[in-house]
Amino acid sequence: MTKAMTTHLLALDWGTSSLRAFLMHDGKVIDTRQSGHGIQHLPVAGETGFEKAFAAIAGDWVGQQPDIAVVASGMVGSAQGWREAPYVACPADIEMLAQNQVSVASGLGPDIVIAPGVVLDQTGHLPDVMRGEEIQIAGALSANPQWATGSCIVLPGTHSKWVVVEHGKIRRFSTYMTGELFAVLCHHSILGRLMPDSVLGQGEPDWAAFEMGLSEARRSRAGDLTHQLFATRTLGLTGRLPHGSLADYLSGLLIGSELVSGLAYAQNTLGVPLVMIGESTLCLRYARALGFLEQPAATLLGNTAALGLWKYATAVGMIERSSEMRMPT
Amino acid sequence: MTKAMTTHLLALDWGTSSLRAFLMHDGKVIDTRQSGHGIQHLPVAGETGFEKAFAAIAGDWVGQQPDIAVVASGMVGSAQGWREAPYVACPADIEMLAQNQVSVASGLGPDIVIAPGVVLDQTGHLPDVMRGEEIQIAGALSANPQWATGSCIVLPGTHSKWVVVEHGKIRRFSTYMTGELFAVLCHHSILGRLMPDSVLGQGEPDWAAFEMGLSEARRSRAGDLTHQLFATRTLGLTGRLPHGSLADYLSGLLIGSELVSGLAYAQNTLGVPLVMIGESTLCLRYARALGFLEQPAATLLGNTAALGLWKYATAVGMIERSSEMRMPT
Repeated sequence: MTKAMTTHLLALDWGTSSLRAFLMHDGKVIDTRQSGHGIQHLPVAGETGFEKAFAAIAGDWVGQQPDIAVVASGMVGSAQGWREAPYVACPADIEMLAQNQVSVASGLGPDIVIAPGVVLDQTGHLPDVMRGEEIQIAGALSANPQWATGSCIVLPGTHSKWVVVEHGKIRRFSTYMTGELFAVLCHHSILGRLMPDSVLGQGEPDWAAFEMGLSEARRSRAGDLTHQLFATRTLGLTGRLPHGSLADYLSGLLIGSELVSGLAYAQNTLGVPLVMIGESTLCLRYARALGFLEQPAATLLGNTAALGLWKYATAVGMIERSSEMRMPT
Repeated sequence: MTKAMTTHLLALDWGTSSLRAFLMHDGKVIDTRQSGHGIQHLPVAGETGFEKAFAAIAGDWVGQQPDIAVVASGMVGSAQGWREAPYVACPADIEMLAQNQVSVASGLGPDIVIAPGVVLDQTGHLPDVMRGEEIQIAGALSANPQWATGSCIVLPGTHSKWVVVEHGKIRRFSTYMTGELFAVLCHHSILGRLMPDSVLGQGEPDWAAFEMGLSEARRSRAGDLTHQLFATRTLGLTGRLPHGSLADYLSGLLIGSELVSGLAYAQNTLGVPLVMIGESTLCLRYARALGFLEQPAATLLGNTAALGLWKYATAVGMIERSSEMRMPT
């Protein structure tokens, strides 16, 4: 059981379906690897599966630096993960996340420090949870101190997050099932029946169909969504949209709904910067939607997990302070 | 090719997943049968499959009365059905449905007259379609002339319909994917993960959880639904609801959303009767939701397809007028 303090860091972004490893020095990523060993896709079940996945992706790095500090974030710290790191309550900052670390023996030498997720659980409101996004947010905030003062950070995806940041803390947040709903409706509902198999995720979107979905979202009243969803079928049946464009209507409707609600959710913070973190193709779709809805543009960032894990390791005290402040390329 | 005109009627309610046959006389159901041979579950593919399914459920009835009139409604008239009966445009009444009948040789003797569906396809609005519900509505309207003058008819189900009737015509309607969304989210999304397998559709609902979903629907703003859906998970993760009650929260949220939007959709007809047609357990859930939302109660009807098919056969001219007016038991 050694807690390393080094100038190098082995940082793991360990989610449900994938595992990414970053070898870092002085806040910069030296090397990156990715594997499909998300916590639901381990090589074997149980503890041994986590050890094998870790050894496979980073065993040689640890062999070269047996004392290297190792940190991890994401679903690896969930109840279904390697070691559960119970949620920290809002408002939460990186110091609180650091205080609530858990650690697990890696099977190779250094322990792995695992960051907790964040829960919002207040009377009179629906509860919400995040796990992994809090570290990406830490990365974004360290890149621009103005965003730490006050910002709304959006992380589009399977379960999109809208996060209100104030005074360096995650104040409150709201999850939207946008990405999962899109996938489930395309693959498991009647809405997918008319869609050609070749269309999903292929080629240039039909932006007119996407904007038709955005228009519906904009004029939607409460409860209308489940009717507007059905139009993904009827627009095809009546010939108003070609079958190859129906998925783009659905995408526009779901993203537009998220934006309408998310912007209202963040209303107390209007005027503060809107920052978007995520995969670039998806972020560009959101950016286009913001423009169509005549909203201020967001600053788009790529994945900030590596930088966030560096900041987290620093807060935990695993990194020598002298090498803390530099930015990654 | 004979078009029978008899005092008896063989009426088929032929949907996607099931086939129901009614032997009728003087507007009354004498005998009823049901099979699993919906149009997507035929004994063999193609035309022969329809013939075999018809012979299996009603061959002996036709053997006893080779001239019997036969009518059918539902997906049997769709592009994937036995013979396509193209949609009739709104506003539509039973005379227009009768004028747009198609017929197909049954393989046994009498032709089968198939009723068309109804389409709403007007500039500036999302299109919508129904197929089968128009016949159930004809049945309801014939049972109470006041409803024909003006009413809102709700048919809860996989694809719930809200139908505004004026002057004997289907004026406009709106479909909600309530039932399909519930099923798809329980069986194919992360929301089903925490739900015990034994719970779905079993035993007495947790009405408090159902009403929690209704409350969320009532206070929902546009776009909020995909956030409120995610709470089906987080209410379980935070221990606010037992896992066995999460499906009832989801049910309340989706039914409540439909009611909020549907009642707004029918707003021009407020004050006219609200009539609900469907399976009794589901209708009672909707009735309870209407009460919780402090809305006027609906009149609940069982399945009105048989009566509607009798009225349709009369409008087509297949039934001798002397036996037309009596009501079924």
